[in-house]
Amino acid sequence: MLLEALYHVPRDKWAYAYDSSTIHLRIRTKRDDVEHVYAMTGDKYNWDGTYQEIEMEKAAHDLMFDYWEVAVKPKFKRLSYAFKLTAGRETVYMLDTGIQHEAPTPPGDHYEFPYIHEVDLFKVPEWAKKAIFYQIMPERFANGESSNDPENTEAWGGVPKIDNFFGGDLQGVLDHLDDLVALGINAIYFTPLFVSPSNHKYDTVDYKQVDPHFGDNALLKQVVEACHDKGIRVVLDAVFNHCGEQFPPFQDVVKNGKSSKYADWFHIHSFPVQVKDGVPTYDTFGFYGNMPKFNTANPEVKEYLLGVAEYWIREIKLDGWRLDVANEVDHHFWREFRQVVKKANPEAYIIGEVWSDSLNWLLGDQFDSVMNYPFADQVMEFFNGGMDGYDFSNEMGSLIMRYPQQTNEVVFNMLCSHDTPRLLTRVGNDKRKLKLCVVFLFTYYGTPCIFYGDEIGLNGGGDPDCRKCMEWDPKKQDRELYDFYRMMIDLRKRHPALRRGRFRFLQAVKNDPCIVYERIDEQMHFTIWMNNTGRQRVLSHPMETEDWFDALTGEGVKPKNGTMEIGLDPYGFRILCRKLK
Amino acid sequence: MLLEALYHVPRDKWAYAYDSSTIHLRIRTKRDDVEHVYAMTGDKYNWDGTYQEIEMEKAAHDLMFDYWEVAVKPKFKRLSYAFKLTAGRETVYMLDTGIQHEAPTPPGDHYEFPYIHEVDLFKVPEWAKKAIFYQIMPERFANGESSNDPENTEAWGGVPKIDNFFGGDLQGVLDHLDDLVALGINAIYFTPLFVSPSNHKYDTVDYKQVDPHFGDNALLKQVVEACHDKGIRVVLDAVFNHCGEQFPPFQDVVKNGKSSKYADWFHIHSFPVQVKDGVPTYDTFGFYGNMPKFNTANPEVKEYLLGVAEYWIREIKLDGWRLDVANEVDHHFWREFRQVVKKANPEAYIIGEVWSDSLNWLLGDQFDSVMNYPFADQVMEFFNGGMDGYDFSNEMGSLIMRYPQQTNEVVFNMLCSHDTPRLLTRVGNDKRKLKLCVVFLFTYYGTPCIFYGDEIGLNGGGDPDCRKCMEWDPKKQDRELYDFYRMMIDLRKRHPALRRGRFRFLQAVKNDPCIVYERIDEQMHFTIWMNNTGRQRVLSHPMETEDWFDALTGEGVKPKNGTMEIGLDPYGFRILCRKLK
Repeated sequence: MLLEALYHVPRDKWAYAYDSSTIHLRIRTKRDDVEHVYAMTGDKYNWDGTYQEIEMEKAAHDLMFDYWEVAVKPKFKRLSYAFKLTAGRETVYMLDTGIQHEAPTPPGDHYEFPYIHEVDLFKVPEWAKKAIFYQIMPERFANGESSNDPENTEAWGGVPKIDNFFGGDLQGVLDHLDDLVALGINAIYFTPLFVSPSNHKYDTVDYKQVDPHFGDNALLKQVVEACHDKGIRVVLDAVFNHCGEQFPPFQDVVKNGKSSKYADWFHIHSFPVQVKDGVPTYDTFGFYGNMPKFNTANPEVKEYLLGVAEYWIREIKLDGWRLDVANEVDHHFWREFRQVVKKANPEAYIIGEVWSDSLNWLLGDQFDSVMNYPFADQVMEFFNGGMDGYDFSNEMGSLIMRYPQQTNEVVFNMLCSHDTPRLLTRVGNDKRKLKLCVVFLFTYYGTPCIFYGDEIGLNGGGDPDCRKCMEWDPKKQDRELYDFYRMMIDLRKRHPALRRGRFRFLQAVKNDPCIVYERIDEQMHFTIWMNNTGRQRVLSHPMETEDWFDALTGEGVKPKNGTMEIGLDPYGFRILCRKLK
Repeated sequence: MLLEALYHVPRDKWAYAYDSSTIHLRIRTKRDDVEHVYAMTGDKYNWDGTYQEIEMEKAAHDLMFDYWEVAVKPKFKRLSYAFKLTAGRETVYMLDTGIQHEAPTPPGDHYEFPYIHEVDLFKVPEWAKKAIFYQIMPERFANGESSNDPENTEAWGGVPKIDNFFGGDLQGVLDHLDDLVALGINAIYFTPLFVSPSNHKYDTVDYKQVDPHFGDNALLKQVVEACHDKGIRVVLDAVFNHCGEQFPPFQDVVKNGKSSKYADWFHIHSFPVQVKDGVPTYDTFGFYGNMPKFNTANPEVKEYLLGVAEYWIREIKLDGWRLDVANEVDHHFWREFRQVVKKANPEAYIIGEVWSDSLNWLLGDQFDSVMNYPFADQVMEFFNGGMDGYDFSNEMGSLIMRYPQQTNEVVFNMLCSHDTPRLLTRVGNDKRKLKLCVVFLFTYYGTPCIFYGDEIGLNGGGDPDCRKCMEWDPKKQDRELYDFYRMMIDLRKRHPALRRGRFRFLQAVKNDPCIVYERIDEQMHFTIWMNNTGRQRVLSHPMETEDWFDALTGEGVKPKNGTMEIGLDPYGFRILCRKLK
């Protein structure tokens, strides 16, 4: 047994309360190195009366490691535990004091999960587990009211630039809500709506007013009400790391310098505030002088921004916040943010924008979820031929093991956004590959999100090209693609197994980019077959039962002599399922 | 290179802000497997203008791993980073996306420490870095006022039992303060003082009143003032996990059941509250029906207990709290506790009672320190002959790497307490071994604490035997031992190098329990030589300079031909030092 590969710590994603009576334990071993792992568990104050040895399951693997998992229900909310690992004749014990070959004397030196506290529980909103999001940049979605168009508004469908306008607004969203209902989505994430001079509005000037080019607060309320009437939840973008330079408190600092009563609202190194040789004399987002960074430790700033967060929840019954540049804001602020937001709406969904490992914010006291850019990157690389099934299964395993299960159930999975090239462009404008990506998205863990227009064939490179106007002319829309999206959305919505069922690769081998994987819960068993090559392929896998059918066509599909053989076109896929009860 | 052994995560003790301009990074490799490790660092918004490659240092090792450390000062408080590791011709890179052999393209896929926030900084009190604690159980320290003795008080020096009394009180402490000054300690940790029926007082009945057998609030205030006048800080015991069953709110629940307005102050599973077949119908400490567990998530309970914490800080200018059964109380409570306590006294020292890995509470938002029982256990085992120098150096390395440096500077190191057998008893009543333990304690990292009476030769087994009355008759005190303690305390107080200097083993090898180690800062260089065997030994180590002298006697000690040879009696030690400037 490779002892150096063993890993467990009695905290974060390795030992956490999943609900008020269940603790999840995880342990890591070298890949294919250990045969059995057992959790030796009990209450330290009555070990003999509570002792249980529970076999753990291999939950995932990556290139180097296997990850084992078990759910334990301690009778008195207290858990002491150690691990027993076996491989052939070798038995190893792992406990708080280290690794040993002798059986430990319980409960001394054991790991501890001292007590399950309801108040420390990481609870994520139930609705987010069922949500299918649609991301809208209002300036580019639909122009419903020309009277509020900015000066120099260009004709709808023109070339997007860093600073041009096309007149999109909230009336446009309202006008097209039924189109979204028809598509089947049940949640919208809006990029910023509040007063700001830019087209993207990430440089806020007034956090409590909808930008007049988009409409007004009453219209936003109307939009959210209409959404709620149609079963659509609404999440807005909270840009709390920084404001726009026209934000009045910052302008007060520009004008009054050190004597401004807002001087401590920002991180200012010297007065007057200015940009010298490309470096502002105050902290900013990146080095952008027009985006001054807030001092979120200042109680007045905190009160102001938390007030904003609460205001919109109460005022328009907002369902959640997506937090811009969330990792550069302090943890104390986000902890208070969670308390304020969840008090105003216990079912509010909090998604942080963090591009790298985000566990620091996903321990129950800050966010529910993060924008899962690492997921998008790996999916793109795989379906663009950059790795084989073996590597892909390793990368997905690694991502699953990054976070506790609560987050995995609602991690915000998208294939592109306003900050990346468009999905279609990312797959070289190959619709077949795009569909494989989308099938994967809708049959995987997490909360999927579609970037507006992806479903009708919008393409585009990085910002600003990915921010093209939505195409509303049915003749210019890719209706075949649209129907495909609608079908996949419908499939996911109909089957809880595709949302909460266990995910596992059935085939993911070296030198072959084709994969077969399953999702399974008590009711349904899905197997998804993907030919991720440019040639015809027949994929086969042992299948015992005869009750499989095509999830999209309903056609029966039977194995022969215990082996299912599925012929697939280049970049083709098939989704089979069978009822378990 | 053994890739499975590499470990780093961008959080907790692996990547943390040490002060407002410094980030500490740590990475783990297989022991003796890697030659050089470099941190590749920069600001992701201006990588080329900020890039720095910094070589890391081996900071510690344990049985299986080396731990490398570096302090980075990012110019704009933001840090992206990766690691480069070399061994022979092999070069490996480690970043957020995993391990690779190709040089990465910065700053994509790098780890991130997004921004150093002052408010998130883990700050520990400066005074605690210089403190030498003395733990007092007031019932057993000195009886200064017989009029307040409990009924059935036994004669001073009798056999301690679970439930007997000897009349110790605060007047006794006040009377003996000058003795403590003479000993040289500069901080006292009192076990509980508040009203309670027991002799240990861990079952509190009134959190705002000193127990009348000990004195009253005014006397406590007088004791603390006198301590402060003499340069002694005072820490009290906060028993917030549970109360005593006579605590009036619990009695109200006993009387009024479900309709008690305090019903939600506890975790009650069924009414009436009672103990059935040894299991209380309410949560308790362990299964002790007389110690009902608080519901610390209840806002009223929180307000009450946080009020208590603040009350004593303001009322008597308390210097800190030691938190009983700290790991079984919720994290939300401790986060608020820290804020309340540090607001009332920014230099308050917060020590949790957690017996196992405590990192969960030592990330800057909860405790400063924990009772370091694992330290005591390893020191005992080593000086009792249970391991060789090699294993001891591994165990100490493992403990150093458990926590961020802030905690290592103030971790509460004791060799015994009211909850363990006495030090002298733990070393088989061998004073020579006891002295080695004490020398190690006073020349190691952390905040040392002496359990009352250890310094004059009190012995005793586990509770209640370890809780004997203090011996005040000089003829019955071990004055030689006392002088030794006084000398070691004095040495540590005079030399910052023994508190904050780098610690490193110079000799700690297999099959030999003798060790040589050093402490070093800019001013002084100490080497400590220990013969941890029952035979005469000569220890030798290469030493280049001729300026060494005995730290306790002042006698010059010179190496011969570049080798220092130190002859030591069985269980003997010697402390050498030299001035660096």
